[in-house]
Amino acid sequence: MDETTSRPAPFPLRPEAALAPESGIVEVANYGRRRPGIIPLWVGEGDLPTPAVICEAATRSLAEGETFYTWQRGIPPLRQALARYHDRLYRRSFDEERFFVTIGGMHALQTAIRMVAGTGDEVAIPTPAWPNFAGAIAIAGARPVPVPMDFGQGGWSLDLDRLRQTVSARTRAIVVNSPANPTGWTASLETLRAILALARERGLWIIADEIYARFVHDPALSIDDRAPSFKDVMDEQDRILFVQTFSKNWAMTGWRIGWLEAPPSLGQVIENLIQYSTSGVPVFAQRAAVAALEQGEAFVARQIEAARRGRAIICGGLGATGKVDLPPPSGAFYAFFKVKGATDSRALALRLIDRANVGLAPGFAFGVEGGFLRLCFARKAEDLEEAVRRLAPVLEAGVPS
Amino acid sequence: MDETTSRPAPFPLRPEAALAPESGIVEVANYGRRRPGIIPLWVGEGDLPTPAVICEAATRSLAEGETFYTWQRGIPPLRQALARYHDRLYRRSFDEERFFVTIGGMHALQTAIRMVAGTGDEVAIPTPAWPNFAGAIAIAGARPVPVPMDFGQGGWSLDLDRLRQTVSARTRAIVVNSPANPTGWTASLETLRAILALARERGLWIIADEIYARFVHDPALSIDDRAPSFKDVMDEQDRILFVQTFSKNWAMTGWRIGWLEAPPSLGQVIENLIQYSTSGVPVFAQRAAVAALEQGEAFVARQIEAARRGRAIICGGLGATGKVDLPPPSGAFYAFFKVKGATDSRALALRLIDRANVGLAPGFAFGVEGGFLRLCFARKAEDLEEAVRRLAPVLEAGVPS
Repeated sequence: MDETTSRPAPFPLRPEAALAPESGIVEVANYGRRRPGIIPLWVGEGDLPTPAVICEAATRSLAEGETFYTWQRGIPPLRQALARYHDRLYRRSFDEERFFVTIGGMHALQTAIRMVAGTGDEVAIPTPAWPNFAGAIAIAGARPVPVPMDFGQGGWSLDLDRLRQTVSARTRAIVVNSPANPTGWTASLETLRAILALARERGLWIIADEIYARFVHDPALSIDDRAPSFKDVMDEQDRILFVQTFSKNWAMTGWRIGWLEAPPSLGQVIENLIQYSTSGVPVFAQRAAVAALEQGEAFVARQIEAARRGRAIICGGLGATGKVDLPPPSGAFYAFFKVKGATDSRALALRLIDRANVGLAPGFAFGVEGGFLRLCFARKAEDLEEAVRRLAPVLEAGVPS
Repeated sequence: MDETTSRPAPFPLRPEAALAPESGIVEVANYGRRRPGIIPLWVGEGDLPTPAVICEAATRSLAEGETFYTWQRGIPPLRQALARYHDRLYRRSFDEERFFVTIGGMHALQTAIRMVAGTGDEVAIPTPAWPNFAGAIAIAGARPVPVPMDFGQGGWSLDLDRLRQTVSARTRAIVVNSPANPTGWTASLETLRAILALARERGLWIIADEIYARFVHDPALSIDDRAPSFKDVMDEQDRILFVQTFSKNWAMTGWRIGWLEAPPSLGQVIENLIQYSTSGVPVFAQRAAVAALEQGEAFVARQIEAARRGRAIICGGLGATGKVDLPPPSGAFYAFFKVKGATDSRALALRLIDRANVGLAPGFAFGVEGGFLRLCFARKAEDLEEAVRRLAPVLEAGVPS
């Protein structure tokens, strides 16, 4: 070892910070963000800004001077509005003390992980998966353990035996994202019961990401126009933390507001974790969230309708090229497809920016090898039709990689 | 051991989450928050809402539909505005790549700690200190190690030998908050140089909280109307992370926006840590922050003036009771005083809410024993004069505890 290699790092960092992976989605978005005319289908957001009725609630709050520190768990009116929203959606009664307002679904996730996993622990994640699950787990010092799902003609499926075999003495939690980003996989009640039984048997937490619950496209899976939920099968002793967001239903990605749903007895711990990480959420954003819950239903209905239309355009249009494997997703608003013959999804995504001026997220970012890409179809029909028009010839020409 | 005690916890949590201390400030604020007529001097914020020119920048941004995901490091116009602000304040040139926009100073702190300390590590903190330093360190799995400061007629002072003796093989960083919350202690250039020399010698990081830099009341310490800074003594190889906030100067506590200043070469790591914890800061809040930096100087000047006036009212008024030890603070906007004869600061703070309807923060929350209280004097003169009128008779009657 020569002197150069033995010299200490100028800025020594904790390994869990230094080794946190760069988001493969952000990398591609940064590559293409400023291209004129690009159709950005790489991130999980639509093309509509937040509805005016929601923005105006924030504007009013700002004008009234609601610019001070506030309740770390969230303002009572928002926690109450969340309880009422859940009452309506799940047709039973929820305690407002279950709801904790967070800086987006991401901070709900960070808080959930921080409660249940750290150095020396493992967390199981069915993959392909949203990369931020593994990112947040790794930063907490724990080890994300992928549970590869199976990909076939009928779409993606979770092998419960493989999940069971993945659980070790170090496993503390299973992340269950249904409907799933990026695959659209949506667990049946039977599957949720089986996962819950495993969690009970092994004393594990479930971190449930059901943020796409209202986007369920397969009628066989729909319960009252929403996806099956752990709420349908759990009881109050179960160790389940729900991470949630206002981002998707109400086009509020940029607001950074979401919520964590947890047993009320964990309230003080959650308050402390919020205090020592973000110190709460702006009151004016919470007023906007109340407006979303109470005046946003017509908008949500339109979002769902747009996603269904987008799904048909993309699955039809890309499927017609004969160059992709794309089983129609059961839920959420992503097409996750394999480009036949392609192996390097990162190179593929960068090339499609250059050649088609369409931004897609590379499959490797979701923990899957091969030529997979994710396309967000929560967008107006014209853009999606244009995206198909641009992508089809490039795909049909064959994409060496 | 009977069956009851051996039964596993219904909701098993990581110890660093379960054991995170409740904020003693929040506890008292929650106790008194809803009392009519209370004068709330417990938290570190003034009585003025955010200036209209700042709010309007956010309102305009919202109306223009800036409600989408954005750059994880912060929007370029804000990073540039931060560089220009530093150019003006420190009279030399700053690279915009040093600045990373965060969810308040708190998330800047969490991010800084996550980079440098975790399980098995120690971080030294001169105390009394803002409790969130220790909270954030503990949640990261590291151990906060207090370095008790000395309290005398001349105020608080840091014993550099004691700091040196506190540093162990496990120490990774020293938190230096100057001007300090709660004590007002403000390090001289000589002290900053001595701390930096120790950090260099032992390979430590410095986490520098200079958020009260513009509130320096002792002319002997003032440099161009600001406190001495590590920026005055460091070079670019030094391991210093600055945590900063828009909360104090611009009355933006409720906005949750701040920044982390770090060596540009750490940019990708910081971006990843932001991605996997909060996923960025709302664009509309960043537009407001640009307005604060570029149009907020007159307001900052008034804030500083109000703090000076408040300091005189409080130090004069409470000092006149003869019942407190209160050396005038050199910087920041807190009076941190000892009530003679009192020992239990928590009981004292709760009693002063009940008897005087004035909210103060208990000293134990800052890691110091005895009858200390913190009073925030960044508030209009009438309120502070009224607070003195209410507190004086209770103090003069003697406060058993």
